[in-house]
Amino acid sequence: MFGVQRFRTGMSRSWEMLRQRYFRVRARTEALCATLTAEDQVVQSMPDASPVKWHLGHTSWFFETFVLGARPGYRPIDDSYQYLFNSYYEAVGDRQPRARRGQLTRPGLDEVRLYRKRVDDRVASVLGELGPDQISVLEVGLHHEQQHQELILTDVKHLLGTQPLRPGYRGDGEHVPPRPAPPLGWRKYRAGIVWIGADADGFAFDNERPRHQVLVAPFQLASRPVTAGEVLAFIAAGGYRDPAYWLSDGWARVQSEGWQAPLYWEQRDDGWLLYDLAGMRPVDPAEPACHLSYYEADAYARFAGARLPTEAEWEIAAVAEPPLDEGNFADDGRLHPRVAPQGDGLAQIFGDVWEWTASAYAPYPGFQPLGGALGEYNGKFMCSQMVLRGGSCFTPRGHVRPSYRNFFPPEARWQMTGVRLAKGV
Amino acid sequence: MFGVQRFRTGMSRSWEMLRQRYFRVRARTEALCATLTAEDQVVQSMPDASPVKWHLGHTSWFFETFVLGARPGYRPIDDSYQYLFNSYYEAVGDRQPRARRGQLTRPGLDEVRLYRKRVDDRVASVLGELGPDQISVLEVGLHHEQQHQELILTDVKHLLGTQPLRPGYRGDGEHVPPRPAPPLGWRKYRAGIVWIGADADGFAFDNERPRHQVLVAPFQLASRPVTAGEVLAFIAAGGYRDPAYWLSDGWARVQSEGWQAPLYWEQRDDGWLLYDLAGMRPVDPAEPACHLSYYEADAYARFAGARLPTEAEWEIAAVAEPPLDEGNFADDGRLHPRVAPQGDGLAQIFGDVWEWTASAYAPYPGFQPLGGALGEYNGKFMCSQMVLRGGSCFTPRGHVRPSYRNFFPPEARWQMTGVRLAKGV
Amino acid sequence: MFGVQRFRTGMSRSWEMLRQRYFRVRARTEALCATLTAEDQVVQSMPDASPVKWHLGHTSWFFETFVLGARPGYRPIDDSYQYLFNSYYEAVGDRQPRARRGQLTRPGLDEVRLYRKRVDDRVASVLGELGPDQISVLEVGLHHEQQHQELILTDVKHLLGTQPLRPGYRGDGEHVPPRPAPPLGWRKYRAGIVWIGADADGFAFDNERPRHQVLVAPFQLASRPVTAGEVLAFIAAGGYRDPAYWLSDGWARVQSEGWQAPLYWEQRDDGWLLYDLAGMRPVDPAEPACHLSYYEADAYARFAGARLPTEAEWEIAAVAEPPLDEGNFADDGRLHPRVAPQGDGLAQIFGDVWEWTASAYAPYPGFQPLGGALGEYNGKFMCSQMVLRGGSCFTPRGHVRPSYRNFFPPEARWQMTGVRLAKGV
Amino acid sequence: MFGVQRFRTGMSRSWEMLRQRYFRVRARTEALCATLTAEDQVVQSMPDASPVKWHLGHTSWFFETFVLGARPGYRPIDDSYQYLFNSYYEAVGDRQPRARRGQLTRPGLDEVRLYRKRVDDRVASVLGELGPDQISVLEVGLHHEQQHQELILTDVKHLLGTQPLRPGYRGDGEHVPPRPAPPLGWRKYRAGIVWIGADADGFAFDNERPRHQVLVAPFQLASRPVTAGEVLAFIAAGGYRDPAYWLSDGWARVQSEGWQAPLYWEQRDDGWLLYDLAGMRPVDPAEPACHLSYYEADAYARFAGARLPTEAEWEIAAVAEPPLDEGNFADDGRLHPRVAPQGDGLAQIFGDVWEWTASAYAPYPGFQPLGGALGEYNGKFMCSQMVLRGGSCFTPRGHVRPSYRNFFPPEARWQMTGVRLAKGV
Repeated sequence: MFGVQRFRTGMSRSWEMLRQRYFRVRARTEALCATLTAEDQVVQSMPDASPVKWHLGHTSWFFETFVLGARPGYRPIDDSYQYLFNSYYEAVGDRQPRARRGQLTRPGLDEVRLYRKRVDDRVASVLGELGPDQISVLEVGLHHEQQHQELILTDVKHLLGTQPLRPGYRGDGEHVPPRPAPPLGWRKYRAGIVWIGADADGFAFDNERPRHQVLVAPFQLASRPVTAGEVLAFIAAGGYRDPAYWLSDGWARVQSEGWQAPLYWEQRDDGWLLYDLAGMRPVDPAEPACHLSYYEADAYARFAGARLPTEAEWEIAAVAEPPLDEGNFADDGRLHPRVAPQGDGLAQIFGDVWEWTASAYAPYPGFQPLGGALGEYNGKFMCSQMVLRGGSCFTPRGHVRPSYRNFFPPEARWQMTGVRLAKGV
Repeated sequence: MFGVQRFRTGMSRSWEMLRQRYFRVRARTEALCATLTAEDQVVQSMPDASPVKWHLGHTSWFFETFVLGARPGYRPIDDSYQYLFNSYYEAVGDRQPRARRGQLTRPGLDEVRLYRKRVDDRVASVLGELGPDQISVLEVGLHHEQQHQELILTDVKHLLGTQPLRPGYRGDGEHVPPRPAPPLGWRKYRAGIVWIGADADGFAFDNERPRHQVLVAPFQLASRPVTAGEVLAFIAAGGYRDPAYWLSDGWARVQSEGWQAPLYWEQRDDGWLLYDLAGMRPVDPAEPACHLSYYEADAYARFAGARLPTEAEWEIAAVAEPPLDEGNFADDGRLHPRVAPQGDGLAQIFGDVWEWTASAYAPYPGFQPLGGALGEYNGKFMCSQMVLRGGSCFTPRGHVRPSYRNFFPPEARWQMTGVRLAKGV
Repeated sequence: MFGVQRFRTGMSRSWEMLRQRYFRVRARTEALCATLTAEDQVVQSMPDASPVKWHLGHTSWFFETFVLGARPGYRPIDDSYQYLFNSYYEAVGDRQPRARRGQLTRPGLDEVRLYRKRVDDRVASVLGELGPDQISVLEVGLHHEQQHQELILTDVKHLLGTQPLRPGYRGDGEHVPPRPAPPLGWRKYRAGIVWIGADADGFAFDNERPRHQVLVAPFQLASRPVTAGEVLAFIAAGGYRDPAYWLSDGWARVQSEGWQAPLYWEQRDDGWLLYDLAGMRPVDPAEPACHLSYYEADAYARFAGARLPTEAEWEIAAVAEPPLDEGNFADDGRLHPRVAPQGDGLAQIFGDVWEWTASAYAPYPGFQPLGGALGEYNGKFMCSQMVLRGGSCFTPRGHVRPSYRNFFPPEARWQMTGVRLAKGV
Repeated sequence: MFGVQRFRTGMSRSWEMLRQRYFRVRARTEALCATLTAEDQVVQSMPDASPVKWHLGHTSWFFETFVLGARPGYRPIDDSYQYLFNSYYEAVGDRQPRARRGQLTRPGLDEVRLYRKRVDDRVASVLGELGPDQISVLEVGLHHEQQHQELILTDVKHLLGTQPLRPGYRGDGEHVPPRPAPPLGWRKYRAGIVWIGADADGFAFDNERPRHQVLVAPFQLASRPVTAGEVLAFIAAGGYRDPAYWLSDGWARVQSEGWQAPLYWEQRDDGWLLYDLAGMRPVDPAEPACHLSYYEADAYARFAGARLPTEAEWEIAAVAEPPLDEGNFADDGRLHPRVAPQGDGLAQIFGDVWEWTASAYAPYPGFQPLGGALGEYNGKFMCSQMVLRGGSCFTPRGHVRPSYRNFFPPEARWQMTGVRLAKGV
């Protein structure tokens, strides 16, 4: 049922617009792979990450399974792809184990690209015949594909950034003269009963609904994310060596995995370097810190005498006033958080870094998962994960909303994650 | 600061009453070990459980470290005990690794009992001199010891119930004629802004504070916990074999650990048996189901077309009306949940089984951990655990409150945990 | 010192012959990769296997490090390759961890091929200037490269044969009409003091030396390897379910890894299939069984009322009379063991399958490892491995000798390993 | 068939003598436990070790199963003991998993002692009726029990020596004034064809048979085991940090387990201490080094420019001349290797420390395991283990023979193992 309203509104658009959007999203995925070799696209660097080729196949499988496959008499393009490119949909059937997605040297990259094309052709040919429910599912598929665009970047960064040569993914780009981060300010918000979540109009994932009221005490939110320089101060103060700052599980991780800094940071004789998608370079203290786990975000907040915002607080702030800036998204090509703009307002609330919240990922009151196999999309992960908000420099522009809920386990570091502090009044 | 108010109120009591309470709690711990051999008290059956002897030492260490040790010039009874009996207080120093508590054949049980006695003697001798803060800490120590009384029962049950002979811990007790469970009813509660959490008066753990307002939609709560018979129906319907009911992590557990029924259930040719602390015996379908993980609780709720209550909903219901029954606590000696009483009202809201809530364990708004090392008591576990409410048949009577928050990871099964369903209106 | 004699003999050859041999071996390695995609060559299917690209780089690194690098003033082609392509030579320096060789998407395949070419050019340019010791090391390098040619085949088979599509590596080849295996005969050998091992002339690895005397009791050796049909009988008799046939460690493997048949066998409704490098096809009972671990070889021998030969027995038999056949080597292109020839004699003693011996891999009396870092080539693995003899259909023709000692841990199954039975007289 | 000869000889002894020997051995086992608490006897300190109580039960189970159980109509003392005290005999049935022997708090120690007594009573009552085969098995049972006497000491040492208090097992004993180790001499042995192994007369385990000829080159054997002082020199020379000395698997262990010295050694500011069964005390450089793995023995030998002897060499030397000393066995009560005696001859060839040989544990030519379930006693372990010879200060005097073959995996350190060097001539 979800998305139907959206479809009805959408009826005023021509089918052509939908078609154009479909192909724009699909093409963007492929454009992300332009600088990658076939070898780069087949390897899986760790069980949590997936090979790029698998992302290419899986996003196509999604349209084939849930849009095309729902049509009477549909014959799959290749039966084996049902197994190979299913991610986690138990209702659809067995699948290649996640940790072994990287063994799939076959089908080769060319075949997977061909699969994409064949899916696209079939989608194009039926687009005009889709009913509202199928349009809704297609809509989900496009947002799903955008999520995988972000995952391609995170997974490629892990693949390239943890192999010995640390090769770059993008060229160096224009030179940005160093500039200082703006001072940390605090934005104040009033107590009240407020509505959060997505309303019935427009696209949203099922986990953003239903829109509902929450009671919030007065709070303050930092005017910008925590910077690399602030994390350097945490490191210098022994933050990674003092259990007083850490959750118990976090401290266990610090010790078992030897965390001494955010992921992709390396200490050399003359200071800290980091890997970004252009290669290794010195840490710029003015930039937002990224690749922090929830444990690190929480520990830093404690060190700073603050806390993380709840997801409701975050959402209230995100809609309370116009953001100071548009935010830095994947389309901007920098693929690393930028120094926050100077000025009075809430900076970088969208884009740059996903912001860990203090909220465990849970169903909203009255939550209804999508019907059918798509019901597994979000709901079955609502345990032991934390909500992140706002999108990042790896997110496609236009993909996130104030009500958008991302979620990862508290130990995850390979996502483009950062910290915005909160405190009471 | 917490507990100070309690102490001031308490000034009207004589010191003698506090002394009596101290010795009553301490004696109760030892009474729980009366039927155990020295061998039973030294072995650790799994990393999550602790040997009884360790519990005996640790609870004494708690008083020695935090009450006696805070006094100027205090000399420890045995330096090695600081290491051996520290549980997880990083600020206090190193400690025997949790998974290796079972290797401590020395000090022997007699020495640990002697340690208890020496701590008791010293506490008794200084009791009259303690200031309000130290009285507060002593108070924490008594509640802490009660928590370990429950852990002794859970850990002993695991030790005895997973070894081949399945020896009993208690005698058979009186014969209770079988009786049916009352039908499942639904209690209705109105929407509103309500206060939850402990106020400043009286004892409460830091995690129950501060008392604060929450906004709650109208909801219904089941009149009694889910019964073993209802779980039998879930099993018979293939509940443990169908991923549709399960959270993703839960389903992974079902498969990797081969769950087919609650912990301590065993299928024989002629039906299901369970181990309770008197030994193996047939499952009584009328009794509340216990030893369910959060994953199982959540899966059963989905199967039943309901959900788990939030902790706020639970707390609202627990204070909304007088409970139908007093609840079955450890002092009652049955050490297994009893069949719910017939009648109109909320049955077994306290005692019998800890009830999983849908709420992840998190700090209340404005949460302040205790000062000093005791700040590690609760706060550092506020991640990846779920809140349980209400106490169980393993809990000492009088230990729990409506605001009491217990917490365990979603996969934990060896605690005395059960399920109460909720749903919207 | 080793190889010097060989070189002296070799002096009668022209340098040109050595040069030709070098390029023939090097070209053969590349020819083995002709049907593989770049994706096939970068992925690592398990920690024990290596990516083809890594083999290509490592064999070149071997010549660069040990032949070119020994020359004064030598400047490496790329410093990072010292790290990336070192296999296990501690004396040479750090290296990419074995289990993470598959993460190296960079340098890309083209760069590694270029590296090969640059090494070849440099070797060619100095070949005429090499002294006898360096010639010896070059000789080792050529035999080393042949070993990796076999590993390329075993590792590619594992990569392709354990991914869902089971793609073939070679075309189907000519049709061979089915024919029966010859009946199992027993060849008798007398007791005596015999010489085994390589003498000082000609090339041999250090582990084949020194030639020395052993005392051997009379024994019998099977006229051919155990066939797939004989293993089918073992399976049918419950051999994989009865611990009586198995070494204790072997039985533990059977259970923990669920072995029910040799590696690459799959049971379907209508019988057993196997994967060979042309794809899936029915098991031919007449062919030698392959991809058996030592545990399975030993269990089968016990089932058959026989035992495995010692390596001395094997070597005695291998030189006692001319083999019945030339053996099936990698150059023959079938890449699977063939049905043994009919006739009176010792069949398939070379080629087809490596034959597990009952001998643990240990130094011969008076063993001297090669000098320098090459001393790590063989000696440091002389523990917890079993000796295999005779080469296989994955081995380059001409690579093995009667004294040749291959070795793998008893649980290894991905090598082209089979069984020849022995018994006393 | 084995032992029959022994029985025939034994016929001249009275049954009374056998009875006395049985009870002497059984009593000795119990005497070893005299200083242990019930707690000490139930705990399992690691998967490779067993609780003392389990040893007490298992050795009794052995007599019950293989001697009493072979008699028609025998009814077991307790059916559950068949499961609880079976070690590894697949043919006998299922068993408590080895790694969980330490969970058996029930049956309690008193019950297990009672079980011992009841088995003893039954054995005594049938002793006069046993036929030669059953006498043979009884004989095996007595030697088996002596093996477990040694294991009790090794396992108790691990239990006590790895818990924080490092409690002693025995009293301090008499003061032995320090004395220097004799200088290392070399004993020379001629080449030849020699017989090794046990002949048909007298008791021996199946793995010592058949007696057979081996061809041995001339060799030299060290006049005494390697001393702690010599190992200190190895440590000081960086032996534990230099891979050049180590087998590949050994070096991996050094790194993964952080080996820096033999097991039970601890470095303090003022030097090295070790734990022996009387507690912690300084390392005496003159004493034989013990608790070395095969990897360490082999690495030390390489460091010393020598090698380990083969088991044939060791056995030849052990019978070539009368030993210089009787050797220090468990009965002597010191329970630690003593400084070697001065004098010309082969010192400490028996007792003090088990001596690692370079020989992998394998069947002798023509090896026949015992019939029935006892066939699992030795043969199924003949893979991936190394032979040790000579007995130790933990071995009961009279238990070992020149032909006696002990065996452990190369990484084992908790046994009373040491090193005797060998070299060629």
